[in-house]
Amino acid sequence: VILLKLDPADRTPMFRQIVEQVRGLIDRESLRPGQAMPATRRLAEDLGVHRTTVYKAYEELWALGYLESTPGSYTRVRWRPRPEAATERQNRPAPAWGELSSPASRNVHGLFQRYRPESSPGRPADIIDLSRLDMDPRLFPAEQFRRCLNKAMRRWGPELLGYGERQGFRPLREYLAQRLQMHGIAAGPEEILITNGSQNALDLVFRLLVAPGRRVLVESPTYAAMIPLLRLHQAEITGIPMTGEGLDLQALERELRQGEGTFLYTMPNFQNPTGITTGQAHREALLRVCERFSLTIVEDGFEEEMKYCGKVTLPIKSMDCHQQVIYLGTFSKVLFPGVRIGWIVAHRDCIERLLGIKRFCDLTTTPVLQAAMYEFCREGYYDWHIRRMHRTYRKRLQTTLRAMRQHLPRERADWTEPVGGYLLWVRLRDPELTAEAFQERLARCGVVVSPGEYYFPDRSQAIHFRISISMLDEAQIEEGIRRLGRALQDSGGPGGGER
Amino acid sequence: VILLKLDPADRTPMFRQIVEQVRGLIDRESLRPGQAMPATRRLAEDLGVHRTTVYKAYEELWALGYLESTPGSYTRVRWRPRPEAATERQNRPAPAWGELSSPASRNVHGLFQRYRPESSPGRPADIIDLSRLDMDPRLFPAEQFRRCLNKAMRRWGPELLGYGERQGFRPLREYLAQRLQMHGIAAGPEEILITNGSQNALDLVFRLLVAPGRRVLVESPTYAAMIPLLRLHQAEITGIPMTGEGLDLQALERELRQGEGTFLYTMPNFQNPTGITTGQAHREALLRVCERFSLTIVEDGFEEEMKYCGKVTLPIKSMDCHQQVIYLGTFSKVLFPGVRIGWIVAHRDCIERLLGIKRFCDLTTTPVLQAAMYEFCREGYYDWHIRRMHRTYRKRLQTTLRAMRQHLPRERADWTEPVGGYLLWVRLRDPELTAEAFQERLARCGVVVSPGEYYFPDRSQAIHFRISISMLDEAQIEEGIRRLGRALQDSGGPGGGER
Repeated sequence: VILLKLDPADRTPMFRQIVEQVRGLIDRESLRPGQAMPATRRLAEDLGVHRTTVYKAYEELWALGYLESTPGSYTRVRWRPRPEAATERQNRPAPAWGELSSPASRNVHGLFQRYRPESSPGRPADIIDLSRLDMDPRLFPAEQFRRCLNKAMRRWGPELLGYGERQGFRPLREYLAQRLQMHGIAAGPEEILITNGSQNALDLVFRLLVAPGRRVLVESPTYAAMIPLLRLHQAEITGIPMTGEGLDLQALERELRQGEGTFLYTMPNFQNPTGITTGQAHREALLRVCERFSLTIVEDGFEEEMKYCGKVTLPIKSMDCHQQVIYLGTFSKVLFPGVRIGWIVAHRDCIERLLGIKRFCDLTTTPVLQAAMYEFCREGYYDWHIRRMHRTYRKRLQTTLRAMRQHLPRERADWTEPVGGYLLWVRLRDPELTAEAFQERLARCGVVVSPGEYYFPDRSQAIHFRISISMLDEAQIEEGIRRLGRALQDSGGPGGGER
Repeated sequence: VILLKLDPADRTPMFRQIVEQVRGLIDRESLRPGQAMPATRRLAEDLGVHRTTVYKAYEELWALGYLESTPGSYTRVRWRPRPEAATERQNRPAPAWGELSSPASRNVHGLFQRYRPESSPGRPADIIDLSRLDMDPRLFPAEQFRRCLNKAMRRWGPELLGYGERQGFRPLREYLAQRLQMHGIAAGPEEILITNGSQNALDLVFRLLVAPGRRVLVESPTYAAMIPLLRLHQAEITGIPMTGEGLDLQALERELRQGEGTFLYTMPNFQNPTGITTGQAHREALLRVCERFSLTIVEDGFEEEMKYCGKVTLPIKSMDCHQQVIYLGTFSKVLFPGVRIGWIVAHRDCIERLLGIKRFCDLTTTPVLQAAMYEFCREGYYDWHIRRMHRTYRKRLQTTLRAMRQHLPRERADWTEPVGGYLLWVRLRDPELTAEAFQERLARCGVVVSPGEYYFPDRSQAIHFRISISMLDEAQIEEGIRRLGRALQDSGGPGGGER
C-alpha cells in the first residue's frame, strides 16, 4: 500500500498529482527499485478516482523513467540513475574543469580570480571606496525610466518581445545617428550596431579582427578589463606608454615600423585609468600616423557625454576620412549600466561583418530595453539627465581637486587634473614604498583605491593608483581624500604617524 | 561679417548657440580654412551679447579644433580633417575589412551571408512561411509582462539599473532552481548562470571548452546556427547520425574509440530539426557511453516546457551522477525571445569558470529584465502561459499531422511525428528530385520550408526539410501543408501539375 493524498481543490490535474507524489516517494527512496506498484484498479479505488486517471499517471511515470512493466507482471519501480543531493554534490571531487578548459579560457580564469574585487572578504562597513567606476545609484532616474518602459511596451508591445531587428531597434539607431552629429560624427543608422554594452562591443570587434598571435596596440596603462579579453582572444599585446598629453606618438611610430598591428585601442577622453583627455593636435597627429600605417583605430568614447568642463575636442571618428576608425559608445557611464546598451559606429561593411558574428554569438540585443531607452531619449530625459550629471560632477570634481591639494603632500604624490569624467591617476613619489606596503596603509586608514598594476599590459615603472569619484558624494569624497592623505603621510616606520 | 541668429527663448546657453552655428558654417564650408573670424568685441556688439560669451564660444571652438589663433593675430578658421557626407561615404571604395578580418571571422561572414533568410528579396505577401522557428507574437502575454516590468521597477528601481549580480538576479536563479526540480534536476542557485539567451550560453560554453582543432560531437542533423559558432571557435565538428530514436549510440562509441571528444551537444527533446524525442533507455545508454569515455555532455533543453503531449522523459541532467552534464535552458521558445534570458546549469566550478569568461565578454545580463521575468514567474503568469501554449500547440500539431496525412503523398515523403515542440522533419523519397528543383516548386506553390542542408555539419544523403509550426495558426498550417502537398505532387515535368 502506498500513501498518496490528493487535493480535489488543487488546480493541478489528479493524474499529475499522483505522478508528482509517486516521484517524490521514489526520489526519497520510500519506494525502492524493484518494489511492485499497486494494480491500477486497486489504487483507483483507494484514491476514489477513475481507473484511467491512475493508468495515465502510470504511463507518465513510465515515460519519466520511474516505472517499468514487463509483460504479464505487475508494474515495478525501476532502477534509475539518481543525481546527488546538494550537500553530497558539494563534497564530491569536482570534475577537472580546469583540465577540460581551453588554454585561453584557463588563462582568463586565473586573471578573473585575481581581478575580482567583489570577492575581497571582510571589508569594514565604514570604508570609503574610491576604486569602483560604477555609477552612483542615487542619481539613477529610475522613475523616469520606468515610465519609458511602460510607454514603449504600450506602444510596441508584442513587437518588442520578438527577436527584433538584428542590427538594433531602428528608432534608437536613428536617434543615435543624430546625437553622433553633435559630436561631429557623420553616420547613418546603417553604420550603427547596437550591442550588449561596450564590453560586448569590444568582444565583437576583437572577434572580427584578432587571430591568435596578432598584435594589438593599447595605451599603457589602459582599461583593465580589456586585457583579459585580449588574452582570451590570444592577442599579442603591445603597450604604448602614455604621456601627459596622450599616448606617445613617437613610440607608436617606432612600434609600427617594427611590425604590423591589427588595431590601436584608444580612449581620447578621460582615459581610463589616467583621466587624460587629448587635444585636437594630438588627435590629428594620431590619426595621421594610423593612416600612414593603415592601422585600424578602435576609439572608445565611453564618456563622450561627460565633458562637463566644456572645451573637449571632437572624437577622432569625426575626422575619419578613410573610415578606418571603429567608434564605440555606451549609455553605461552617463546614465546607468543595467540596460546593457552600447553601440559600434563603423563602415558599413565592417558593421555587416560584426552583425554576422553577433548573429551567431547572442542573436540580438533585447528590443524591450532599446525601445525604452529610445523613449527616454526622445522624451528629453537623456539631455535632462546629462545636464544634471554635469552640474553634479563639476562640483564633485572641484571638491576632489580641492581636497587633494589640501590633504595630499605634493612631495609624496602627483596627479592628473581631468577636464571631465570620473577618474584621477596618482603617482607616488616615495621610491621606498612598495605597492603592498601602501595597500596596507590604505586599509588601516579605511580607504580603497584601484591599484595601478591592474591597468598595465606589462610591468609598470612606479606605484600608481586610480581614484574614481563616480559613486561618491562630496562629503564622502572629502573624507576619502583626507584618509588617503593620512595614508600618504604615514611614514610606515615604527613610531611614525597614527595607526 | 558672419551671419548668426541667436534665440534668447532657447534653453541652450548663448555661447553654445554660437558654437553650434559657427561649427555648421565651417562644416558646410561657408567659412573656409584660413578665413579670419570677427574680433570678439565686434561680434558681441553685433549679436547683442556680452563679450565674455563670445570669448567662451571661441575658446570652445578652439578646443573642438575649429579655430586657431596665433599670437598677435586674429583668430582664424583652422584646417581640420573632415569626414565625408553619407552619399560620398557610400561611394568610396570600402576599406578591405575582409582582408583585415581574422580567418575564423571571415569564414563566419561567408556562412552568415548564405544563411540569411531575412535578406531573401521579393518574397510575395501571401506566402506561407513554414521555415521560421520564431514564436507567434499573437500569443505573447505582452500586457502581463508590462505589468511585471512595472512592478519590478517599483520594487527594486535603482538596484536594477546597476550592473547587478554577475551570476544573475538571485531571486530568478532561486526560482529556476525550484523549477528545475520539477524536471528532476537538483541544482542550487550557485549552480546556475543567467545568460543573454541560449545562444550566448552556447558561446560561453564553447569559449570555456573549445580550442582550435578540438573535436566536438554533434547530432547530424543538428541546430543550424550552432555550426557557424563552432566554426568561429575553429572546432573540428564530427556529426553523429540521428536514428528515429535519437543519435546512433554505436556510431558515437565508434567515434570515441577513434579519438577524444571535447563534448557532445545533444537536444533530447523535440530535437532541432528532426523533432525527435529520445526515451528513458536511450538517455541512460547515452549517459553511460559518455561516462565511460569521460565525455562532457552539453544538453540543450530549449523546449523543456513544451511537452504538451505529456509522456516525455526527464532530462539527462536529472541522472547526472558525475556532474559531467552542462544543461542549457531558455525562456525564448515557450514565452518570448525578446528578453534574451537563458541559463546554464552545471557544476559549481564550471559555472565559476563560465562566469569569468562572461565577466570579460559582456560583464553581465541586464537585471531589469531578469527581475521582470522573476515577477512574471512568481505571479503565476509563466505557468498560466505554458498551459495556454500547451492547449494551443496540441491543437496546432494535431491539425498539422492530419493535414500532412491528407495532403502529402506517403510514397513521396515521410516525416516524424513529434510528441511536443514545433518541428517536423520531412524526407523526400523521390530520388530524381534535386534540392534546387524542389525549392523552385515550393516557391511556385507559395510556401517556404527550411532546407535540410542547413542542419548537417557534413553532407546530407537525401533531401530533407524542416517544418516549423511555431508562428502559424491552424488555418495557416492547413493551407501551408496543402501547398506543400501540391509542390510534392507536381511532377515538375512539362505537362505535369498546375503551374
